[in-house]
Formats: sequence, structure tokens, C-alpha cells
Amino acid sequence: MINDASQSSDAVDVQALTALLDGEYAEIRDLVRTNLAAHASVLEEAEELGIDAFRERVRELTVELAATGQTGMGFPKEYGGGGDIGASIAAFETLAYGDLSLLVKVGVQFGLFGGAILHLGTERHHRAHLPDLITGKLMGCFAMTETGHGSNVQALGTVATYDAPSQEFVITTHGDAARKDYIGNAARHAELAVVFAQLEVDGKREGVHAFVVPIRVDGAPAPGVRIEDAGRKMGLNGVDNGRLWFDGVRVPREALLNRFADVTPDGAYESPIENPGRRFFTMLGTLVQGRVSVGGGAINAAKVALAIATKYAVRRRQFEAASDGAEQLLLDYGMHQRRLLPLLARTYALHFAQDVVRTQLHEVFSGNQDDEQARRELEARAAGTKALGTWHATRTIQECREACGGAGYLAVNRFAALKADSDVFTTFEGDNHVLLQLVAKGLLTNYAHEFEDLDQLGMVRFVTGQAVETVIERTSVHKLLERVRDLLPGGDDWDQEAGLLDPDYQLAMVRFREEHMLAGLARRLKRGLDEKRDPGVVFSHVQDHVIAVARAHVERLVLEAFVDKLRTLPDDGDVGDGGDGGNKAALGLLCDLFALSTIESDRAWFMEHGRLTVQRSKAISREINNLCRKIRPLAVDLVDAWGIPSAMLRSPDLVG
Amino acid sequence: MINDASQSSDAVDVQALTALLDGEYAEIRDLVRTNLAAHASVLEEAEELGIDAFRERVRELTVELAATGQTGMGFPKEYGGGGDIGASIAAFETLAYGDLSLLVKVGVQFGLFGGAILHLGTERHHRAHLPDLITGKLMGCFAMTETGHGSNVQALGTVATYDAPSQEFVITTHGDAARKDYIGNAARHAELAVVFAQLEVDGKREGVHAFVVPIRVDGAPAPGVRIEDAGRKMGLNGVDNGRLWFDGVRVPREALLNRFADVTPDGAYESPIENPGRRFFTMLGTLVQGRVSVGGGAINAAKVALAIATKYAVRRRQFEAASDGAEQLLLDYGMHQRRLLPLLARTYALHFAQDVVRTQLHEVFSGNQDDEQARRELEARAAGTKALGTWHATRTIQECREACGGAGYLAVNRFAALKADSDVFTTFEGDNHVLLQLVAKGLLTNYAHEFEDLDQLGMVRFVTGQAVETVIERTSVHKLLERVRDLLPGGDDWDQEAGLLDPDYQLAMVRFREEHMLAGLARRLKRGLDEKRDPGVVFSHVQDHVIAVARAHVERLVLEAFVDKLRTLPDDGDVGDGGDGGNKAALGLLCDLFALSTIESDRAWFMEHGRLTVQRSKAISREINNLCRKIRPLAVDLVDAWGIPSAMLRSPDLVG
Repeated sequence: MINDASQSSDAVDVQALTALLDGEYAEIRDLVRTNLAAHASVLEEAEELGIDAFRERVRELTVELAATGQTGMGFPKEYGGGGDIGASIAAFETLAYGDLSLLVKVGVQFGLFGGAILHLGTERHHRAHLPDLITGKLMGCFAMTETGHGSNVQALGTVATYDAPSQEFVITTHGDAARKDYIGNAARHAELAVVFAQLEVDGKREGVHAFVVPIRVDGAPAPGVRIEDAGRKMGLNGVDNGRLWFDGVRVPREALLNRFADVTPDGAYESPIENPGRRFFTMLGTLVQGRVSVGGGAINAAKVALAIATKYAVRRRQFEAASDGAEQLLLDYGMHQRRLLPLLARTYALHFAQDVVRTQLHEVFSGNQDDEQARRELEARAAGTKALGTWHATRTIQECREACGGAGYLAVNRFAALKADSDVFTTFEGDNHVLLQLVAKGLLTNYAHEFEDLDQLGMVRFVTGQAVETVIERTSVHKLLERVRDLLPGGDDWDQEAGLLDPDYQLAMVRFREEHMLAGLARRLKRGLDEKRDPGVVFSHVQDHVIAVARAHVERLVLEAFVDKLRTLPDDGDVGDGGDGGNKAALGLLCDLFALSTIESDRAWFMEHGRLTVQRSKAISREINNLCRKIRPLAVDLVDAWGIPSAMLRSPDLVG
Repeated sequence: MINDASQSSDAVDVQALTALLDGEYAEIRDLVRTNLAAHASVLEEAEELGIDAFRERVRELTVELAATGQTGMGFPKEYGGGGDIGASIAAFETLAYGDLSLLVKVGVQFGLFGGAILHLGTERHHRAHLPDLITGKLMGCFAMTETGHGSNVQALGTVATYDAPSQEFVITTHGDAARKDYIGNAARHAELAVVFAQLEVDGKREGVHAFVVPIRVDGAPAPGVRIEDAGRKMGLNGVDNGRLWFDGVRVPREALLNRFADVTPDGAYESPIENPGRRFFTMLGTLVQGRVSVGGGAINAAKVALAIATKYAVRRRQFEAASDGAEQLLLDYGMHQRRLLPLLARTYALHFAQDVVRTQLHEVFSGNQDDEQARRELEARAAGTKALGTWHATRTIQECREACGGAGYLAVNRFAALKADSDVFTTFEGDNHVLLQLVAKGLLTNYAHEFEDLDQLGMVRFVTGQAVETVIERTSVHKLLERVRDLLPGGDDWDQEAGLLDPDYQLAMVRFREEHMLAGLARRLKRGLDEKRDPGVVFSHVQDHVIAVARAHVERLVLEAFVDKLRTLPDDGDVGDGGDGGNKAALGLLCDLFALSTIESDRAWFMEHGRLTVQRSKAISREINNLCRKIRPLAVDLVDAWGIPSAMLRSPDLVG
């Protein structure tokens, strides 16, 4: 791919911007870029090979990537890993520039399976399994989801009964709703499974625990294990998803991943965490890296789509043969700018938000700052960023495909795979709506160990009058306005007098929205409870508010991440100055565009709640158009700064 | 598929509703349903066969369908057709319940290729080609689009020069931008192509004309013809799209499709239509049935997605194992209702709007009412309905996939194919944005023969002060309000006092929006022209208004179609009454839901333009929630009424 020189500007120093975006993980990201370019043929193989051959190819590549060290960054060095959790996420994010089957295979093997062994197991499991799983010699799967219990892990139906005489667990699938479903690596490659099951000791249920279970011996299903191929999927056909049933499968007592609970040889259950609920959520919490990974991967998949569409839009003339000389490139049209550039701005915003959640994950899991408060914050942020990042990917890839017209429909131009492969990101590692409900619940309560309780009815029951009262008090409009007045000049008219491009104004708007929505939700819940209505009905009636408040919360976090990032940069130039300083100015334009288009798309709410006059609402729309025109000449540089290997864009006719 | 009896209600008479929806075309629709069920295996074959085998299979099925008469309804009876244009569209729409490669193959063969021979050719072409193309024995393609001229047919680069001595046309591709691209049937099956080229007679360019050109002889490319396979696409891989180049290809004088223009043997150009622009748009106008067909097909593809998601939502419990008895089905949740039911309502609305445009097409092309005014109205309505219908399909299929969670991602559950195959509908037969620009231009002007001028700059040039002044005058807010006052009680407070469920209120709102937007657009254009600004820049700055006004216009037409339909129904029952009368009540709920959710999604605009108070805006949102709860018990009946053969839903685990 050769960039059209006329389309790069002096205003942005692309190399410096790439360095800024890569941050402390430039080295591992560059390793991944090199690996992506070396194996670029996988993009064609994904189309040309049959399912069986492509699955084998993806397995092969997984092992090859493992040999370069990029996939093992999150494991301890003593077992052959890189000992750097943050770097492992950064590597995963960057891998999303390429084929997404390979990405998900890596995620299943090293993130889900490897992560469970690492975080739920103890030294005996680490010694036994980590060295071989890090190289990819030992493949495994993560058998949690069941057909009948997609989002409700606590209720799953697989049972593991301790048999004291033999010192074994006996694992059985009870009913077809309890079959393990959509399990990546299960249909073909996994030898081991980490199986989540209800532990039963001496007739007593102790809750969900994880066990290491051999599911294949010499390529054939292990005795008592039934495996079914989940078959062809919309995308990700390089990943062998399958279904598992267990019929009295026996594993030794040591197969229990016993970091948080154990069973003694003679059948006594013991755990350092007394409260069963808290124990369960502690176990589940260790798996948060999956959500952080998928969110980051989705954001980078969106970048690939935007890079192609942007390059196409500065190459293509809508009407090449128009008779006069005034022909414009696609990206010179206001509508086309409106279609692509707010998505570009949002992608940058989400990139910086992802930096924040990745850093939090690193701090917690490296033990630098690992307390209950930090874990709770991390889990909420991971859930929210994953939801917004994956929805953003779906929407962006679609818009970019359409913006490339019929050419965008040809497989060679990448969108086919991007769309089909990324589509399930909104669903797996936690359905986005369910995740946002968790976020909202976290906002309403202060009890970390209840956070992961996915039962919606439980949410209503749990939000007792007490919690609700607190929220209502804390978020009263009066107090909200007081706090805003401290931030902004203009007194009671802050929302009329502040400059639209003042970040404090932008932040005040999204903060006000969040807190006001939260208070409204709390009031609605309280009314329902006061009236003794059925909790399910109460929840059903407020559910759209629940989702809205969570979305508002996460968008606030995203804007804060962007503004915070900008404030750390040296302030030494304008767009057009050239050199490094122009980068801050360019990012400033993007941040304004993100903030104002976020407000614009919810401007009805702001008007309904007295925070936006008609005049100001229209002014925001005009300012967005201005910002688009200012960003237009920088657009190619801004997508080039992501450092996507050109072979990953393919699309010879669109970007060549 | 067996319906869960507990989910059907007494309120809707499903059979009667199906009859109402099928209308006068029940017979042909039932034939298509029978054919779909008979060939249901094509849905699996689309996944399992390789591209080559699947293309052959789709060709085979096309010929089999042709033998039943369903695909030839639009051709004259004397050549073996059915002589009923409306029925041919109805058949095509219904075919969209099944595999969409087959749909598009049928569209290419009988709609584009066959339609061009029928509408642009004369008896000699009809006699020569119609009998064999109607049976599918003769396959052909429609070679209009060029790589460099996607939306600008008037500027295409292929040239056909008349050579008087030999009485032949010599057809040549000038430059790679003039290669014919994305041509369905070209890569493999077409023997003939209808080729659009600039006609050159005696050194003079006479504009774009169509020629019948043999491109394959005994399966090999004809001399001078180069054919390239467009390769794998996101979907529709049963259609063999290809590229064509012509290098001095000679065809006899009689190859010109000469209904609207001819060349005499000695090289004189003659046409009954003097004005070259008008001649061109008359030719192009005959192809409007393609847009009507795609729009209708898209709406029916959306129905398939909604039927699956709705049935899943009354089967699936979010948390099956919740401990108390208050478990709810997915569709009992407010959020889930909000996700699916407004889409259900919009699908019904678009169905009735499609009835209107299909009827207009039938009237014009059957010669019942064929004047310039009628053609212009038809073209505008076809463009608008196609744009809204295809965007609706993309959005609905996506939402339904997500609403089915991970199960929605498995190929067996239909969404994979629906998404991938329908995605290009927003682009082909006219890119939706370009189509909406045409609609807007039609609103601004009264010159039918300029309507199809796709040049955006031309639009600005054309919209002279005169046209703009007229629009501004006609749509002044003062006059708008006067007209509304005639319709509604309440005087100047009509927008405050009318009932939200009063169809006159709903219509007044969308009419006011359309006319107000149109006036605003006209004023902006006038200002740009008065200031002598570059037309390209003026257009770029107003382009989002152009799209918005067109969308508002088409949504008004859609709502009118729904309200008009309701008014024709006998008024003899309520929801819950049982029997036929309940159907009108159910449709009334859907119409209200469509109208109010249309207003709600643009409520910011209505507030910005003084037509919605904050209180009323909130009241509309509450009313939408109420309507959703009322429609909830009818939902399964409402999707069953579409009469989608159960085999077309597949999804054994979702709807079984």
C-alpha cells in the first residue's frame, strides 16, 4: 500500500502519534505487527480453506505465534511466560488487526483456558500444565457456558460429586440444558477442559467450582465424555466450537482448581473465603481479563475498517466524470465526513479508555494495587468498556462497509471477514446488555461481592430502600448543580455560557446526565418497591433506564480518559504547525468531536432535562460540522498512526 | 415448527391477517411458499457447497422455479410469461423468505436482463430472446455499472461506435475505469449481456444506449470479450458476479435495444424523444422495477429475522434457574420489547408502503395510468422505499441476531446468511444515500426529466433561485401551521392538545417535519447561491439536510400508507374480541407504535423546532412502552401472519 502523498498533512507527526498510542507496549505491539505481516496469508486462507483445513491452519499459527513469545506474556516467567499482564493484553489487542479466528483461538487457549489454570489453580496445576499450554503443545478449553444458563453461571447444571472412598470427583451433565455450549477448542483440539460444575461434597452443594478434566485421549473423546461440533458459524470458523456432555466422568481430587477452595482427602470442604457468594464472585473476577481483551480487540478491529474506508474516501470521487473541475473526493462531502469522522473520534476515545482499563488490570493482577475496591472498579470498567467497544466495532464496520459501496462487499476488501467475525463480540464474554446491567447495579450499590450476581430479579430485591435513598440523596439535582458550579464559571447558567469546546463544559454535561439518570432510576425502583409490586415487573419497567444509565456512566469514563490523556501532553503547537506539537492539537479536535457528538446524539435527553436550549443544541450540530472540516485534512494521518500493517488492509482497489 | 400454543392469542385471527397482508397476490405468494418449502435444502447447500457447486445449484433452482411460472409473471403471455407486473414483484418479495442468492439470481435474470430486453427492446428482441430467457434456458446479464462510475450512469466510459459500411456497432471499453463491474451472471452463466454504452454515430455522441451483446459462445468468452470473476463476496456467493471488458466487439445494427432510439442502416440517429436528457431518463426509468423488487425483498428478509427472534423471545427465559417462580420470558422484559417491537411495527408499516409502490408500478407498467407525473411519483417512491426498506433490513437483522445471543451466531440459525446476503441491498440498485438525494431533488423541483440526473453538483446548479423560492414560499411555517389547523382541533396548540394516538396528530407531526426541513434546505441552498459560493461546497454543507429531508418525506409516505390501509378496514372489534375485528385493533396498535417511535427517534428535532414540549416528549416515550406491553401478547401471531414457511426459519433450537 502506498499512501497518496497529497493526503498526508504536515500537521500530524504520524510516527510520534503511533508512539504515543502504543505507549509503554510499543515493543510487544511491534512484535505482533511483524508476526501479522509474516502470516498475512491467513486472511486469504480464511476464505479459501474448508472449515477443517482452516481450523488446523489456525491451530498451527497459534503454535507459531506462541514460539515468538507474544501469546505468553501474561504467564509467570518461571513457566516460560513473559510476566507482564498489561503486555499480554496489548499483544492481544494488536493481533485484532489480523484474522479474528486466530485472535479468538489465542484468547481461548491462553486467556480463558490458560487464565483459568493460572488464576484458579495452584502450583501443582501450574507445574503440570503451564509450560505445555504456553507453547501450545497442550490445547485446552474453558467449559463454563451451558445451553440453559447463558448468563447465569451460578445456576449451571453440571455437577461434580466428591467420592471420598476413591478420592475422586464424579462429573455429570444433568439434562440437556446443562450441556456445555459454544466452547471454543472443544470440537477438535482441546485435550483438557476447565469445567465449571456445582461441587457436591457429602450431599451438600458448595457452589460452582472449576476442575481440570481430560476430554480427549489420543484424539478420541475420553470415556464418559460426549463431544459435538457446534458446526458452521457466521464467522470465526477457524475456531472449533463444540458442545460437551459428561456422564460420570471421574477425575482425581487434585483436579479441583483449588486456589480459593479445596476438598480434603476424607471429604471436608474448606475455603479461606467464608461467604459462598463472595467466593464465587472472587473466582469469576479472576476472569475479567477476557472482557478487557475482547473490548480492546473490538476497538482495533474497528480501526481496520476505518483505515480502509478513510483511505478509500480520499481516493474515490463520487462522480469521476463530472464535467467541471470542481469534482470532490468522497471525504470532501459533508455527509461522508459525518459518517466517518465521529466514528474516528470515538475510536480514539475508546483507545484511551482501553489504556485505562488495561492499566487497572495490570495493577490489580500484578499485585501492585489489589484490594476489593480496585477489583470492583476494574470489573465495572471492564464490563462497560467491553460493551461500548464491541458495539462500536459492529456499528463502525457496518458504516465503513456501506461507505465503500459495492467494493466493500467483495471479500478481498476485508469487510466480509471483519463483519462476520466480530459480530459475536457483543455477545460473548458477557452479553452487552447483561454487562451494562451489572454496571448499573454497581452504581446503585456498594457491595462488591454482590456485583457479579447476574440475576436481574436479584438486582431489584437487593436494591433495598437504603441503597436507593443514598443514591437519590447523593444525586439530587440541587447537589448536582452545586458541584457543576464549582467546576465551571457562569453560575446557574453554566450550561449556557461555557464554551462548547471547554472540556470542563463537556465533562459537566456527561456527568450531569449520568447522575441525573441514576437518581431517576433509583426513584423509579423505590416507587416500585414502596408499592410492593412484583420485582420482576418493576425491573421490566425500568430496564431501559438501567441500560441508559450504564451507558451514560461508561461514556463519561471514556470522555474522562480522553481529556485526562490530553492534559498529560505537552502543550506546544497548533494543527498546522507541523512537528510533535500538532499532535496534541489534532487529538484535541478529536476529543471535542467525540464529546460534542456524544452530547448531540443524546441531545433530546439534554433538552428534556433542561440542560440544552434549542439554540445551543443547534450550535453543537454546527460545531460538529466545523470540527469535521478541520479533521478532514488530518484523517489519513490519524488512521495511519494506528500502525496497521498494510497487508492487513488488503483492499488493493480501495486503498492501493 | 410447532407454535407454543400458549403464545398465540385469541385477539388476532392469523389466517385472516395473512390474507389481508397477501392481498390480491395470495395465489402467487402461496405458489412461491410451496416452492420455497420444496427446495428448502438450498439453505444448507449455501453453507456446505463450495462456490462453484453452489453457483450451479442456484442456476439449476432458477430454472426449476421458472418452470413453475413464478419468475415469469412480469412478461407478456404471448412469450410464456404471466402478464402481471404486480404479481411478479409479489413473487419476488415472497422469494426473499428463502436463500437470497437464489433471489438475486432471479432478479438478475428476469428483472434486470429480462426487464431490459422487455422494456428497452422491441418486438424483434422480444421474439428472439423472451421465450428462452423466461424458461431460464438463455441466461443473461445486465452490464451497466462501471468501476469508475458507480452512481453516474450518464458518464460511463464504454463506447459503441456505429460502423455504417458493415452496419455494425463496435463496442470498446475505454480505460479500466470503464470496465463493467459487479455484474451478476457474468462470471459464469450469461450468454448474452445487455451492455450500456455511449452511442457514437458519425463522430457524434448520442448518449447512453443499451445493446444486446453475446459474451459467451459455447461456454467460452466471445471474441474480444474479457471476463473476470469478481471472486468471493461477503454473501450471495451463489451469484456469479464478474467484470467485463470489450475490445472492438462487433454486433449487428439490430442489437441496439431500440424502443426509444434507433440508428438507420446508413447511419442516421433517430428518436421519438427529442431531448437527450429526457431520453436517457426515460430509458433508465423503465428499470425502476429493480428498486421496487429489492425494497420489497429487504422488508421480507427482515420479517424472517423478526420471526425467529420473536419466537425465541417467548421461549427463552433469561435466567432459567432463578430460584423463585417469577421467571419471565425474554419478551416480558421491557428492554427486549423495546428492541424488537418497534422494529415489528416498522416492518408492518413498510409492508403497506411496499403495497403502494408495487401498485403504482403495476399501474404505470400495465399502462393503466402511465403519464409523466405518475412515472415521476413512482420513481421517487421506489427510490425512497428501497432506501428505507434496505436500511431497515440491515438494522433489524442485526438487532435480532444480538437478541438471540450466541445461538444467533450459529449458521444453522439463519442470521449468518441473512446478514451476509442482505448487506449489499443498501448499495445495489442505487446506493441509499444517492437515492435519497434523488428524492430530495424531486421535492425541490418539478422537472421530471431531470430527476434521474445523479450528479450532485448538477443538483445545486439546477436548483435555481426560482425553484427554491417556490419551495420556500410553499412551505413557510405560517402556511404549514395554517394547513395543520385545518386538520386538527386545538388551534395553535394542536401539537399540545391532540391525542398522541390520534392519527391526524401523528400525520401532522411528520408532515410538519418534512415541509419545515424542505424549506430550511431551500433557504440554505438559496443563501449559498446568492453568495456565489462554489456549488460543490454549498452541496457539501447541506448534504446532511438533503438526506434528512428525503428520509422525513419517505417516512411520511410510509405512515400515510399505514393509516390509509387502516382506514379501509371494517371497524368491528377490539384486541381481545377474537375474530376478524381484532386484526384491525392489532394493526392500530402497530400503527401507533410505528408513528410514535418515528417521532420519538427524532424528538430532538421536534423539540428544536417548537413542536414538542419536554413533557409531551416524555409522554410519547411512556406511551411507546405502553404500546409495547399491549403488543407483547400478540407478537407471535403478528409474525406468524407473514406466512413464512417454517423450513425457512430453520433455527431448531430457537423456534422449535
